[in-house]
Amino acid sequence: MEAMTNQTGARARHKTTTRRAIQTAAIELYEERGYDETKVEDIVERAGVSQRSFFRYFPYKELTLFSDDHTEHLAELVLTAPSHFNAIETLDWATAQLFLIPTTELDRRRQAIRNQLGDDARVQRQLAYLHESLSIRLRDAYVRRLGIDPADTSDLRPQILVGLYLSLATEVSGRSQSPEETRQRWLASLRSLL
Amino acid sequence: MEAMTNQTGARARHKTTTRRAIQTAAIELYEERGYDETKVEDIVERAGVSQRSFFRYFPYKELTLFSDDHTEHLAELVLTAPSHFNAIETLDWATAQLFLIPTTELDRRRQAIRNQLGDDARVQRQLAYLHESLSIRLRDAYVRRLGIDPADTSDLRPQILVGLYLSLATEVSGRSQSPEETRQRWLASLRSLL
Repeated sequence: MEAMTNQTGARARHKTTTRRAIQTAAIELYEERGYDETKVEDIVERAGVSQRSFFRYFPYKELTLFSDDHTEHLAELVLTAPSHFNAIETLDWATAQLFLIPTTELDRRRQAIRNQLGDDARVQRQLAYLHESLSIRLRDAYVRRLGIDPADTSDLRPQILVGLYLSLATEVSGRSQSPEETRQRWLASLRSLL
Repeated sequence: MEAMTNQTGARARHKTTTRRAIQTAAIELYEERGYDETKVEDIVERAGVSQRSFFRYFPYKELTLFSDDHTEHLAELVLTAPSHFNAIETLDWATAQLFLIPTTELDRRRQAIRNQLGDDARVQRQLAYLHESLSIRLRDAYVRRLGIDPADTSDLRPQILVGLYLSLATEVSGRSQSPEETRQRWLASLRSLL
C-alpha cells in the first residue's frame, strides 16, 4: 500500500516535471523567436521530450500559454473549506487561499506573451474554453458543498457563485493592485450589497 | 423647438428602418446561401441601401448577426428604476422589464444562424466585444445610480452587479424555460444566498 502510494507520488512528480520542462522550453522559444515562428518540433527538442509526450500534456500548442493549476485548485478549496462556513464565507476563504499562491516567474513571462498576442482568435478561444471548464468544475464543487441534488435545476446558487468568482477574477486581472487588496475590496463591496 | 424634436424623431425612425432593412436582407441571404457565401454587395442590393450606409450601421459583417438594442436598454432601465429600490431590487426590476420585450422572429432567425456558425472565431470575438461594451455601460449606469464618485475605485458594487447580470444572462440563454421563469429562480437563489 505504501509502495503504491510512493509510486503514485513519483508518477505525479514526473508528470509535473515534464509539464514544466515543456512549458519552460516553449516560453523561452516564444521569447526568442515569437509564438508563430516556434514549432512543436522546436519545443520538444529543447525540452528533451517526445512529440507524443508533448501532445499528451498540450493537445493544442496554445495551451502552453496557460496554466490551469490554479483553477483546479479553486474547486478543491471550495470543497475543503471549514464546514461551518456559509457560501459567501466559503468564497472568501477559498479565494484568499488561492491568492496566497505566489505568481511564478514562468507565469509572468507566459502572461507577457499572451499580452503580445493581443486578441488573437486562438488565444481568445482558449480563454473562453478555460473559463467554461473552470465554471463547470466550480459549479460542481458548490453543488456538492451546498448539498444540492444535481438533478434539481431550480437552485441556482452554484451558478451565481461561479458568476461572482468570474467577476472577481476579471477585477483582479485588470488592476495593478495586489490580488489580495482587490479581493478584500471586492468582498467588502459584495457584503455591502447584500 | 418642436420642429427640431420632430426632425430628430423622424431621423431616429429612419435609422431604425434602415437598420432593420439591412438586417432582414442579411438574414434572408444567410438562410438562402449561407453566411460565408453572402457578400456585403448582395446584402446592400437586396436591402436597397448604399454600401456606405451598410458600413455606417455595421462596421463589420458579423455585426449583422447581433442586435444590441436590449443591452442599451438595460443600462437605461437601471437608471430609471424607482428611486427607493436598492441595488438588488433595481437588478430585479430592470431585468423583469428587459425580459418583457418579446423576442422577434428576426431575433430567432439570427440566433439560429449564429448557432450554425458554432464557435466561429469571428462570432466569438464579437460576442466577447459585446459583453465587454455591455459591461462598461451597465457598470456606468450603476455608478450613477448608486451615486459613486467615478474616481473612487474602491467601491466595486457596480462591477459585482454587472457580474451578476452576466451570470443571469448566461443562465437564461442556456435554458429551455422562459427567460422570466429562469430569472425568477435565479433571483430567488440570489436572495437565499445573501
